[in-house]
Amino acid sequence: MSYDELRERLGRINDLSRAASLLAWDERTMMPKAGAEARSEQLATLARVRHEMFTDEAIGRLIDEVRAGLDPDAEPGSSIEADLARVVARDWEKARRVPADLRAELARTTSVSEHAWVEAKRESDFGALLPHLEKNVELTRRYADCFEDFEDFSHPYDPLLDEYEPQMSTEDMRRVLGELREGLVPIVRGATDGDGGEGPGDNSLQGDFPEDLQRRLVEELISELPFPEGSWRLDPTEHPFATSVGHGDVRLTTRYDESNLGMALFSALHESGHGLYEAGVAPELARTPLASPRSLGLHESQSRLWENWVACGRPYLERLLPKLREAFPGSFEAVEVERLLRDSNRVERSLIRIEADEVTYNLHILIRFELELEIFEGGLALAELPEAWNARYREYLGLEVPDDAHGVLQDVHWAAGAFGYFPTYSLGNVIAGQLWEAAGTDIPDLESRIGTGDLAALGEWLRDRVHRHGRRLPPAEILERAGCGALSVEPLLDHLRERVAIAA
Amino acid sequence: MSYDELRERLGRINDLSRAASLLAWDERTMMPKAGAEARSEQLATLARVRHEMFTDEAIGRLIDEVRAGLDPDAEPGSSIEADLARVVARDWEKARRVPADLRAELARTTSVSEHAWVEAKRESDFGALLPHLEKNVELTRRYADCFEDFEDFSHPYDPLLDEYEPQMSTEDMRRVLGELREGLVPIVRGATDGDGGEGPGDNSLQGDFPEDLQRRLVEELISELPFPEGSWRLDPTEHPFATSVGHGDVRLTTRYDESNLGMALFSALHESGHGLYEAGVAPELARTPLASPRSLGLHESQSRLWENWVACGRPYLERLLPKLREAFPGSFEAVEVERLLRDSNRVERSLIRIEADEVTYNLHILIRFELELEIFEGGLALAELPEAWNARYREYLGLEVPDDAHGVLQDVHWAAGAFGYFPTYSLGNVIAGQLWEAAGTDIPDLESRIGTGDLAALGEWLRDRVHRHGRRLPPAEILERAGCGALSVEPLLDHLRERVAIAA
Repeated sequence: MSYDELRERLGRINDLSRAASLLAWDERTMMPKAGAEARSEQLATLARVRHEMFTDEAIGRLIDEVRAGLDPDAEPGSSIEADLARVVARDWEKARRVPADLRAELARTTSVSEHAWVEAKRESDFGALLPHLEKNVELTRRYADCFEDFEDFSHPYDPLLDEYEPQMSTEDMRRVLGELREGLVPIVRGATDGDGGEGPGDNSLQGDFPEDLQRRLVEELISELPFPEGSWRLDPTEHPFATSVGHGDVRLTTRYDESNLGMALFSALHESGHGLYEAGVAPELARTPLASPRSLGLHESQSRLWENWVACGRPYLERLLPKLREAFPGSFEAVEVERLLRDSNRVERSLIRIEADEVTYNLHILIRFELELEIFEGGLALAELPEAWNARYREYLGLEVPDDAHGVLQDVHWAAGAFGYFPTYSLGNVIAGQLWEAAGTDIPDLESRIGTGDLAALGEWLRDRVHRHGRRLPPAEILERAGCGALSVEPLLDHLRERVAIAA
Repeated sequence: MSYDELRERLGRINDLSRAASLLAWDERTMMPKAGAEARSEQLATLARVRHEMFTDEAIGRLIDEVRAGLDPDAEPGSSIEADLARVVARDWEKARRVPADLRAELARTTSVSEHAWVEAKRESDFGALLPHLEKNVELTRRYADCFEDFEDFSHPYDPLLDEYEPQMSTEDMRRVLGELREGLVPIVRGATDGDGGEGPGDNSLQGDFPEDLQRRLVEELISELPFPEGSWRLDPTEHPFATSVGHGDVRLTTRYDESNLGMALFSALHESGHGLYEAGVAPELARTPLASPRSLGLHESQSRLWENWVACGRPYLERLLPKLREAFPGSFEAVEVERLLRDSNRVERSLIRIEADEVTYNLHILIRFELELEIFEGGLALAELPEAWNARYREYLGLEVPDDAHGVLQDVHWAAGAFGYFPTYSLGNVIAGQLWEAAGTDIPDLESRIGTGDLAALGEWLRDRVHRHGRRLPPAEILERAGCGALSVEPLLDHLRERVAIAA
């Protein structure tokens, strides 16, 4: 009875949470401009009501009652009941520790700060953002302080990281990304930048590609992915994302740049990877918190896997080329697979993270992660952030940052108070490398299957090893059971070495 | 302080209500098929949480506190505070009278019944729906019984009507629609059916009109209406509707039939009328229950006014014709305004309400209203409904109903438990006639303004006299202050006589 009541209460909270996802999706794809103010009030109310419903004493009592009837030593994954109780108990404990006032102040402050960031970036004026950043960091420290005696945390950055990468310690992340840096810096140093001195006309993915033709192609490519029938839609937006607004309902987005086909193509496949993850969660977890994957590292591994390992690989591109010729008559007649492969895997040191290629991307992330650690370990004053940023771009990428708009002001994350988010991007790449290797072991003809258009084999493998678990297993346990062993950067580094060789 | 707290609580309930509107809009315009089950759970949760928040004892206490500080004799419309307290007190009293169990049973039963209706209509099998209808009527009677000593109600149909047409008595509705029937039957009897024996090729609005060209035209027409900038969007759907998902955000829909341009054209202008009403509510009422017009009669008057009085009138059509010629090259070259006017105002006795013309439409409504009264006054057994239906179609429209799919099973309303809804359609037409007359008195050159494309004059008049009040004034009071006097069917009958003359 307690379990049924707990599940029903969590089901209602989940309904509100999915409703909020739809409102957020609509805001970024459909909403008329004049609806913005009302929408932010609606989203704030949904967050508030959800929080009140979840932090209710009754939820804690129900969790205790459910746990009292369960084997305390049950393995994760052995019963939904036990997994739900375990995961929700931790969520509830975390939610109860943060006072409502602090939550409200964080929401208000970061909202103001985000608006200030837009202006500061436009003017390339770090000083204008600084007081907001200082307030954000101060409140974030107060948030972290709420967890001083929380058993899972031992580092001031742990509670921040845990929001985006549950149950991974700062020390583990530092070790993994440290190894990644060690391996990556020499790879990037040895890479040729682009093809040197050529204009954009030399890239087969750049040219003139009408939006409606792009859309038709991209929809065809997504329809070949292993989505359940009638379970997704694709819409244009400014900053592509994917979201699940309910079981059986995935919203994908992409951005069309008529001069650059790669933009829509690869971002759509990237977001489809996120969408497949959401769509692959076992149906019996629907309406529970177990149905919403929380590890951004695992989530990003799914998007990167489809975008970079699959779609930028030779077998996929060999099948893509005739489709490109059909979709854009004249544009790809003279293009051979080798060229398409090279154009899909260009390497170029650049200043802007979101425009970076697959290889150098991780250096952008490492810089941000290291700076976040310095901030929260107390060594770095925020006023010195631009200087520290520029020094690392010089050291890791060999680039001079001309101004803060192209430097420390380029991302919204810190202005939005999202400290602890960045490292999950690179963690996702690391995990994708390991999963790709494990999938290749289990499906020996994986690449040739992709070459014949059979994407279901990989889709089913991922669903079985990763997706279906939702939050039932800790991320490390999912990887272990998928045959990946402990986190290791070697598969990613091997993959990037191959990509650099193609680009050369 | 009590007022601020009341307003904030109501604001949150309103946020959830608008969120539900967005979910419902999305369900009918955007949602992938596989999302249906999750969506119905989300909508049920939003309804439940809203209801719990609204029926809370604290709301009643706050209302009492607010009212204690107010002049009890304040005129409606003299202070937002007093209007809010008055309207919410009545809503709260009504909401508290219906036990949660009965509400839940109504929701469950009508949901099952709606599904049974789809099947029964497909098979034209009234017997299959009958047990569901009986259950619906029984529960609806129990619902009405909750209001036995409610001071506003004196007839068993009053509480049903009040859901759709607040503060209008059954006796008043019976009188008005009785007068409408008296006037309308001879008008319809004297009307010529269509042009007699001609094929669809004779109607200039029928032919071959590609959807994307229709969409472009319809968007242009809507952009000429007096909507605030960036406050609406238009999407295709199966059964057109309009909804407001927040201040500044109106969602319009239409349906494209490539063989019938009139479908998209007039339904879009109809829904725009609803949208303009929502968009015209005074901004200071945003997030309060006063911001959501509740009288379906007033609402329908706005849609009908733009669809029938404006868009089917000569001045509008004179401006429309060159646009039609431009939008559909070749199709309207030989069409003169007289012909377009006639084709936009055809009269034809038919069996199906939603396909009926403006003149005969009200007879369809009168039949349904009269049958509803007979059911709830106890004279008519549901098993005899098809026979009673068919007899009235013979009497009022001179038509034989061939089967129940084309008769009593055609509408979802009764299967959905929506008794009391139908009469508001005709009430809307009555009100539109009166408002058009009053607007014409205040704006003597109204028709010539429309002829020059100036739709703002009418838009502003309606906003000032009707829209801005939201729910601050009772509908009868709004009409009184707009210069319409008491409800009268004469302006509508005059208008329909003119239309019949055009069609002849």
